[in-house]
Amino acid sequence: MIVVMRRGAGSAEVQAVVERVGELGFQAHLSAGEEHTIIGVIGDERPINEAVFRMLDGVEKVVRILKPYKLASRDFHPQDTVVPINGISIGGQRVTVIAGPCSVESREQLLETALAVKEAGATMLRAGAFKPRTSPYSFQGLGTRALELVAEVKEMVGMPVITEAMAPEQVPLVAEVADVVQIGTRNMQNFALLHAAGESGKPVLLKRGMMSTLEELLMSTEYILSHGNYRVVLCERGIRTFEHYTRNTLDLSAVPVLKQMTHLPILIDPSHATGNWEWVTPLSLAGIAAGADGLLIEVHPHPERALSDGTQSLRPERFCELVTKARAVAEAVGRSV
Amino acid sequence: MIVVMRRGAGSAEVQAVVERVGELGFQAHLSAGEEHTIIGVIGDERPINEAVFRMLDGVEKVVRILKPYKLASRDFHPQDTVVPINGISIGGQRVTVIAGPCSVESREQLLETALAVKEAGATMLRAGAFKPRTSPYSFQGLGTRALELVAEVKEMVGMPVITEAMAPEQVPLVAEVADVVQIGTRNMQNFALLHAAGESGKPVLLKRGMMSTLEELLMSTEYILSHGNYRVVLCERGIRTFEHYTRNTLDLSAVPVLKQMTHLPILIDPSHATGNWEWVTPLSLAGIAAGADGLLIEVHPHPERALSDGTQSLRPERFCELVTKARAVAEAVGRSV
Amino acid sequence: MIVVMRRGAGSAEVQAVVERVGELGFQAHLSAGEEHTIIGVIGDERPINEAVFRMLDGVEKVVRILKPYKLASRDFHPQDTVVPINGISIGGQRVTVIAGPCSVESREQLLETALAVKEAGATMLRAGAFKPRTSPYSFQGLGTRALELVAEVKEMVGMPVITEAMAPEQVPLVAEVADVVQIGTRNMQNFALLHAAGESGKPVLLKRGMMSTLEELLMSTEYILSHGNYRVVLCERGIRTFEHYTRNTLDLSAVPVLKQMTHLPILIDPSHATGNWEWVTPLSLAGIAAGADGLLIEVHPHPERALSDGTQSLRPERFCELVTKARAVAEAVGRSV
Amino acid sequence: MIVVMRRGAGSAEVQAVVERVGELGFQAHLSAGEEHTIIGVIGDERPINEAVFRMLDGVEKVVRILKPYKLASRDFHPQDTVVPINGISIGGQRVTVIAGPCSVESREQLLETALAVKEAGATMLRAGAFKPRTSPYSFQGLGTRALELVAEVKEMVGMPVITEAMAPEQVPLVAEVADVVQIGTRNMQNFALLHAAGESGKPVLLKRGMMSTLEELLMSTEYILSHGNYRVVLCERGIRTFEHYTRNTLDLSAVPVLKQMTHLPILIDPSHATGNWEWVTPLSLAGIAAGADGLLIEVHPHPERALSDGTQSLRPERFCELVTKARAVAEAVGRSV
Repeated sequence: MIVVMRRGAGSAEVQAVVERVGELGFQAHLSAGEEHTIIGVIGDERPINEAVFRMLDGVEKVVRILKPYKLASRDFHPQDTVVPINGISIGGQRVTVIAGPCSVESREQLLETALAVKEAGATMLRAGAFKPRTSPYSFQGLGTRALELVAEVKEMVGMPVITEAMAPEQVPLVAEVADVVQIGTRNMQNFALLHAAGESGKPVLLKRGMMSTLEELLMSTEYILSHGNYRVVLCERGIRTFEHYTRNTLDLSAVPVLKQMTHLPILIDPSHATGNWEWVTPLSLAGIAAGADGLLIEVHPHPERALSDGTQSLRPERFCELVTKARAVAEAVGRSV
Repeated sequence: MIVVMRRGAGSAEVQAVVERVGELGFQAHLSAGEEHTIIGVIGDERPINEAVFRMLDGVEKVVRILKPYKLASRDFHPQDTVVPINGISIGGQRVTVIAGPCSVESREQLLETALAVKEAGATMLRAGAFKPRTSPYSFQGLGTRALELVAEVKEMVGMPVITEAMAPEQVPLVAEVADVVQIGTRNMQNFALLHAAGESGKPVLLKRGMMSTLEELLMSTEYILSHGNYRVVLCERGIRTFEHYTRNTLDLSAVPVLKQMTHLPILIDPSHATGNWEWVTPLSLAGIAAGADGLLIEVHPHPERALSDGTQSLRPERFCELVTKARAVAEAVGRSV
Repeated sequence: MIVVMRRGAGSAEVQAVVERVGELGFQAHLSAGEEHTIIGVIGDERPINEAVFRMLDGVEKVVRILKPYKLASRDFHPQDTVVPINGISIGGQRVTVIAGPCSVESREQLLETALAVKEAGATMLRAGAFKPRTSPYSFQGLGTRALELVAEVKEMVGMPVITEAMAPEQVPLVAEVADVVQIGTRNMQNFALLHAAGESGKPVLLKRGMMSTLEELLMSTEYILSHGNYRVVLCERGIRTFEHYTRNTLDLSAVPVLKQMTHLPILIDPSHATGNWEWVTPLSLAGIAAGADGLLIEVHPHPERALSDGTQSLRPERFCELVTKARAVAEAVGRSV
Repeated sequence: MIVVMRRGAGSAEVQAVVERVGELGFQAHLSAGEEHTIIGVIGDERPINEAVFRMLDGVEKVVRILKPYKLASRDFHPQDTVVPINGISIGGQRVTVIAGPCSVESREQLLETALAVKEAGATMLRAGAFKPRTSPYSFQGLGTRALELVAEVKEMVGMPVITEAMAPEQVPLVAEVADVVQIGTRNMQNFALLHAAGESGKPVLLKRGMMSTLEELLMSTEYILSHGNYRVVLCERGIRTFEHYTRNTLDLSAVPVLKQMTHLPILIDPSHATGNWEWVTPLSLAGIAAGADGLLIEVHPHPERALSDGTQSLRPERFCELVTKARAVAEAVGRSV
């Protein structure tokens, strides 16, 4: 941590900072520049509140030096993490394609979709039971009834499944059926939910908050990892910006940047990011070219009849084309689908 | 709802939309412009998913006409709502000043602060027991121990109290002690928590998500109101923008805009918005001048020793000055503190 | 400037940075922390490109310590600057109200408006001749013909005038007639225009870019000040955010923050920020309460006939009410209108 | 255009809107919904100011139906535009790679870079003469001296060149030497500059403003096209968001979205978007996979000695690797480099 004094700060003010540094058990390292005196605070700054120094007289600003996340950092775990999930894995040489409906609506719809996406090349099924909806007047998902259908269809089709939990008490219900517990964008900082997911005993897919920085994403990851659950997969799903032509702005820079910051695998979700099926395929290919470890794609046999998110869902035949193209791009960057 | 057809859409495409409108029990109203055919959908569009029309061939876009919120809307409740809270009220002629520490740290700290803010003119105490923290390595609040201290100090000082609940299971605990249950910015779309607050039997303070539009804020309000709990107070606490000199950007336009959209009272929280005590007083005055019904202010007797958010906390003597100035501005706009 | 080395950077890497520091004529100050070695660069860092160190092996990041602006900074000019303008001034005890039409449309419209706003209490007239319009198909202003009308009406009514210049070659034309040359939000980083304004011999009103940080605003100011033109007035006019209910988000925190960063006076423009006359009055009052030195308000005698920006223009009678209220709030904060 | 009346608007208010529609030479189309009356305005709405209706009593909002841009729209020009440039072209089957230094610093630097990028596979050279810099204290480019060097090196190496003009009077100077005139991100709404570029007789590369919507980008394009200059190439170079880990956020969705909105070719500039050479290659590949017609890449033989933007410049050998990978991805999506 670096404490920058205001121009013209007196030596008594500097001394007070140095003393506070000592009181807190750190070492102070003084450096008098031409315009500002700077005090280096030597030690693990993570647990310190900046106000400790910021509120002292004569202090202009406090600059943190250490990354605030630890377990998720490449510094502490240089190799790529590969998350094994019921026979498949996320994070290795292979790009994982996960597909399925936004919400489970019926046994027929789920089964038809699952068979279609498996046939097309997906290796995991996504299926929503509890749905976070902006409006209380929108379809809220079939809940536990959906979980029963998921269990049944999973058995019939033979694919691992990922399902979202929206509240801590839903985590055990979801974990009983699903192979991966998903935490959605609005819950990235729902700390009670992060705790529950950390203790679920299942791999967790954590979506970036639509207005969260990459650093905050990794801090939320830390909540899960610190429970000893290291099977965490990240997902970029679009951030909120001033541009409203697409629903959100898919931040593909997040892929190479996260690869540098962390050892955890990263998926992209172009369906939610764009809100429009027409742009899902080009952005899926872009995601793979950028280095993503997989895709999360919404597929619905009849998007115009979907109870949620129809405009962003691909019909099965288009999803099939997407996978074919994804294969070609994956090979071009030395991977496979 | 208005369905805009693409330029050159054929009559069969138009016909298909008209038929779908009929199937859904609505009336279609056709209007052929020079460049686009437009189809008006007459009826309550709120429960319809746009995809129903958007996915049909030849459709360019779908424009919603109705406001998606209902119970919170001025259209349905033209008069201002005044929320009575244990002897005081929020929303009338008087501007309510709520103050206290970010987190309860000890009996002494809470009592000292409560006495000071009451003396200065605050009519409600804020006091955090469960703290949502970006990092798992930061102080997380004293939890239920803090609630006991809140109950004790509330009794001694004689002020109603507002406390945040972060998870559905915390709502009854908080509601037992506090007079208002607060839902924080990261939980504005935590729908399970909104449900719990709706059923708490207590007034609810709902903070705008730092990444949420005003319309989304009112949709979240709808989750609470639809449980029959009409004692809801809104709070603007800064939104996330590209400007990082302040922690967030306090959106004061939200005050007159919300006054037009809704009948519910609106507070502002300049402490969290700016992240810096030096800017809290001018923005408090600005909030009152803009028409806010109250202020939510962090006060700490020793900000440099605070376990959370010290940099944004006012010392009691400065808070006292704030109230004096707030009184003058309130009078200038025909209100009182 | 602080150079932070990566964890595990070797001593040869550290040595290379130290040597580069010396080559550039600075002094290096080494500090070995527990996790990172940090190198302080002592000297005036302003002219150095970060890449000079950032591109060296083993460097993790480079942190600037000095403010990048100088002439605009309070550090170099602690007292408030008051800008005298043809008999009035901006920046003292008095809050300046500037009002008038978005565009000059006719002699009658300009004269009627000027008389009305003067009568209501405005001390300066705003009047657009050249209009920056997003679309080439919108009204582009009357140009030089407008300047003639401005000269004529200014003479008749006896008020100083502010007019925008959009290109360097317009600056002398505008400066001949107007008392203040305005640089609009889209031109805050039009460096050729900043140069021309710096050499115009007239006071300059510089609007913050709608997507510019406060630091960038002061850097643009530096372009004008460095021409020896110290009569610069800043203006906050709304920034672009994800919230689209208002046209832009008026960033009122900018007022107290800029007051701390710089000695220059600051106005607010709530008309452009909100895009809607209904919210102009409450935000004007809020601006004064926050400490702004003045207001820039659009007034039009017949907004529904305006050739540009009608929805945000106040009718003269409403502007009159605004001034009455502004007076009361100004007095409440120890100033006058 | 659709005029939505407030709930409970009276028939006199509706009548007044209908009359105004008639006065303006349009046809009104009335539709009484359950909650709102809606008035369709039939005719070309582009020249009308919304305030014309918005300011009338009883009007809640005005919704535009037509796209505000025309010449740039696919509706008016369905086929892809291919821009021929001195022997090469942008916009066809082939992905164009443009590379070179941010600023021309010396004859040696420019020649060395030009030879290296040509050898690696670039078909056009980028070279900055006039540099828009946030700070007046940063290197501002060599100006006309740089143009002489560009002319000389272009001749020696035999590659078309693209150079930025920052002010209208620079356009003829740049156009004399360069094959494409570039308009930078800060000047996307510098309307005087757009006019000058429209009349330059040269192809124009227009960069999206870092704070501009895609619709605004096309409106700015309209300024150039309406001068009869149809050789316009668009460029996405990152937008400003709350995420500051990368300098800007490269909006790759813009590629497929613009392909749908307009017939003009689209490049991406990952160097400026990320501000860091380490992320340039993955985002270049992503851009090609998303459908971009080309790349704009900064290359410098000695980035650590660059006078501007060194951190984002690739060394020639890394650029060479980029082109090899780009070739593979282009082939995977049916194109070539």
